[in-house]
Amino acid sequence: MTAPGTIRGVGLGPGDPDLMSVRADRLVRSARNVAFFRKAGRPGRARAIVAGLLSEDAREIAMEYPVTTEIPLSDPAYNACLSGFYTEQTGRLRALAEAGEDVVVLCEGDPFFYGSFMHLHDRLLGHVPVEVVPAITGMSAAWTATGRPMTWGDDLLSVVMGTLPEAELVRAMLNADALVVMKVGRNLPKIRAALAQAGRADRAVLVQYASMEGQKVTPLTEAEDGPAPYFSIVVVHGEGRRP
Amino acid sequence: MTAPGTIRGVGLGPGDPDLMSVRADRLVRSARNVAFFRKAGRPGRARAIVAGLLSEDAREIAMEYPVTTEIPLSDPAYNACLSGFYTEQTGRLRALAEAGEDVVVLCEGDPFFYGSFMHLHDRLLGHVPVEVVPAITGMSAAWTATGRPMTWGDDLLSVVMGTLPEAELVRAMLNADALVVMKVGRNLPKIRAALAQAGRADRAVLVQYASMEGQKVTPLTEAEDGPAPYFSIVVVHGEGRRP
Repeated sequence: MTAPGTIRGVGLGPGDPDLMSVRADRLVRSARNVAFFRKAGRPGRARAIVAGLLSEDAREIAMEYPVTTEIPLSDPAYNACLSGFYTEQTGRLRALAEAGEDVVVLCEGDPFFYGSFMHLHDRLLGHVPVEVVPAITGMSAAWTATGRPMTWGDDLLSVVMGTLPEAELVRAMLNADALVVMKVGRNLPKIRAALAQAGRADRAVLVQYASMEGQKVTPLTEAEDGPAPYFSIVVVHGEGRRP
Repeated sequence: MTAPGTIRGVGLGPGDPDLMSVRADRLVRSARNVAFFRKAGRPGRARAIVAGLLSEDAREIAMEYPVTTEIPLSDPAYNACLSGFYTEQTGRLRALAEAGEDVVVLCEGDPFFYGSFMHLHDRLLGHVPVEVVPAITGMSAAWTATGRPMTWGDDLLSVVMGTLPEAELVRAMLNADALVVMKVGRNLPKIRAALAQAGRADRAVLVQYASMEGQKVTPLTEAEDGPAPYFSIVVVHGEGRRP
């Protein structure tokens, strides 16, 4: 019986390959099997980060999301469709591991922080060896891009998803000293309204494409209305005590 | 007139040098001037992470914290003492930069996330060029060590300091789905009591020395009473929606 291979969820960080960890860089360069999520017909954002790093004879395993744009998020069919997809992809990776092959799964950001890999991880646990390599988060790259420290002293930092209802956003914003809003995109007008209600609009900063080509930092009061690109994060810096 | 050098706050990540970024690794190895904080008489935790990486002819600039243990935190003399220290160290680094020397400041974790470098950064800005390299946070290493994903779907993550009064801890815990408590140390009994009041004690995990030698993951209910070591973080995982 072949000893099973290990499936590694390898965090690639915020997008600049220079910000990958030494370990991630080594694992990616030496990988024989490289899996990554992508939308059908797209190159895949995680795959793009490692362009030029992969070995020429690496086997690439593209895990293409099913098209779900016509199913409302609230429809149980949406979850069922995604669940089936993750189970199917898990089967592909598990078969490789059971045949003795190590697999590197490319993960944008940090794998355990709102990552897609988590859906595979849950399904792989207990069947084949799984490891995770942490990484620099997109939010770290975003606050670094602003050129200002994010959290001081006893500041309470909250990370909230822009997909939440406006009232929940306001409540979270009122309870935090420093704030990161992710999943901004078309939620930007709602986020802006919530920040205004929480009295934080003047201090909010919109960061687009942090650490990547096209990085752009704009005070939210000066940012255009309408949806923001996928790689957008809103930050409000803490102002805690400092000597 | 000499062109000024650049002072770079370089995040080293959670402690394992293999988790430094490719950029940080390169900057540290090639640095001519390397500055770091340490307690008097100690080697310095940031310095220890890069043991074996520094060039033999690198100039080392140890920034030794003044002894403040006899001054209460609430005494204005405490802040004045630390402020004077940071201003003095800023002067040392600024003089090097003005003489044309680049300086790498070694930073544990991510420099802009509750980092000591921020106190230098504030004082250097506008005088000499300053750059920051983000890094993997200690909390990412902590939740990775638990072997379980940290945040799902629309989970709200809060990062709170164990130094806060118990009532504020409880409030923060009640408002969050996923939770990171830092500055644990001797605050552990208070943190434990707050988690119990917030109904989160059963799901809390104590992580010590994440990514380092001696890494230890313990359900908080099974952890010893009394203070925890410096490198301790408490996490409560989110349980948000997942397909």
